[in-house]
Amino acid sequence: MLSKNQIKSLTGLKQKKYRQQHGLFVAEGVKTIQELLSSNLILQQLYTTVTFHLDTNLETLISESDLKKISSLKTPNQALAVFNIPEMEILPESGFILVLDDVRDPGNLGTIIRLCDWFGIENIICSEQTVDCYNPKVIQATMGSITRVHVSYTDLKTYLSTTKLPVYGAFMDGDNVYTETLVSEGVLVMGNEANGISEAIEKHIKKRVSIPRFGAVQATESLNVATATAILLSEFKRR
Amino acid sequence: MLSKNQIKSLTGLKQKKYRQQHGLFVAEGVKTIQELLSSNLILQQLYTTVTFHLDTNLETLISESDLKKISSLKTPNQALAVFNIPEMEILPESGFILVLDDVRDPGNLGTIIRLCDWFGIENIICSEQTVDCYNPKVIQATMGSITRVHVSYTDLKTYLSTTKLPVYGAFMDGDNVYTETLVSEGVLVMGNEANGISEAIEKHIKKRVSIPRFGAVQATESLNVATATAILLSEFKRR
Repeated sequence: MLSKNQIKSLTGLKQKKYRQQHGLFVAEGVKTIQELLSSNLILQQLYTTVTFHLDTNLETLISESDLKKISSLKTPNQALAVFNIPEMEILPESGFILVLDDVRDPGNLGTIIRLCDWFGIENIICSEQTVDCYNPKVIQATMGSITRVHVSYTDLKTYLSTTKLPVYGAFMDGDNVYTETLVSEGVLVMGNEANGISEAIEKHIKKRVSIPRFGAVQATESLNVATATAILLSEFKRR
Repeated sequence: MLSKNQIKSLTGLKQKKYRQQHGLFVAEGVKTIQELLSSNLILQQLYTTVTFHLDTNLETLISESDLKKISSLKTPNQALAVFNIPEMEILPESGFILVLDDVRDPGNLGTIIRLCDWFGIENIICSEQTVDCYNPKVIQATMGSITRVHVSYTDLKTYLSTTKLPVYGAFMDGDNVYTETLVSEGVLVMGNEANGISEAIEKHIKKRVSIPRFGAVQATESLNVATATAILLSEFKRR
């Protein structure tokens, strides 16, 4: 049985403050945990209702009711694991890099990480206000892709003012992405769900691109940031 | 003040059974309601904490606490309106039609309706097991696009076996969509979140298309149905 203190420290990891303080994050569900175990991530402890046949120091068998107490899910899925948050790597300077300027919704970030995995994009650089990629809802939505895509957080103004890569940005009034010259090595900036790319970041963007709207004049104002990212990454990669 | 019976019948509309029985659905939030009011939809009743200056027979001013009782939202947004579900139209036989085979997640359907609005696709035909487009979470996610995109429900086997349009379907092992010949008038079938397109429907598909994966061998197994739909609609429309 888990002690009150154990439950408290595990549920504390739902909060970014505690994740950063302890350098730990939580993943749930047998399939996600198995994906994470087969990566370079370091397991701290596994709490499970079914044995994974790991070293017994790392595996603790618990009851369904204990799992319910520590889970973030409405329907807990057999196991919860605590992993070390990997060391922040040096910011990438080559290849294709996706930059997120204040994406706030965990589901959107999770979907975007999964999209990058699909399109072979290894690096995402986020503004410090972007939702934490170790948020349990993000981890859930990535379906294991978090092990193959590096997500870094930094001051975007500094990063974008020093990068030598061409910087593209998604805007409502940019040039038609279908006819624009795109590059295989570059940076693509996507903005916040409600406000798009912020003014401070806009200054650093060399090419403004848009997805043309085919609908009626009164059609939807904008696309969701995850679906817009899907379409733009598809355009950059297919050429 | 709303009576217990009024609250009961309004909250009942969260369920498909009651929506169908009464031919009514609910929309929430000032912006969504305004979009719906400016469409062909027929308003049955508006319950609001701020006046819309409508005919007083149709507008009922209520308290925040009453709104909380009838709302499906965690943070109710000033108003809730009840509209008539429009009459089922005749299934379209021309143009570009999106077909959904058992898409179950309300957020996915809402995002897909918004995508169709963006790309000027006026018709979606759903299997009877697809989530109801008048589900409050779908209405919320469409951001008003439900007024410009017609969503019909029917037996897909019958529809697909009689249509004269070319039928495309999204599969994991289809032909590369980037190099395939696509058409401006046709049907594109998207499958269920977990199981893809069902066997019974697969028989009616003439062209199987896929979005190529650029990531490592062990990369993510699949894309979310809404992001895959975004990429495929972009491919069909840009040519």
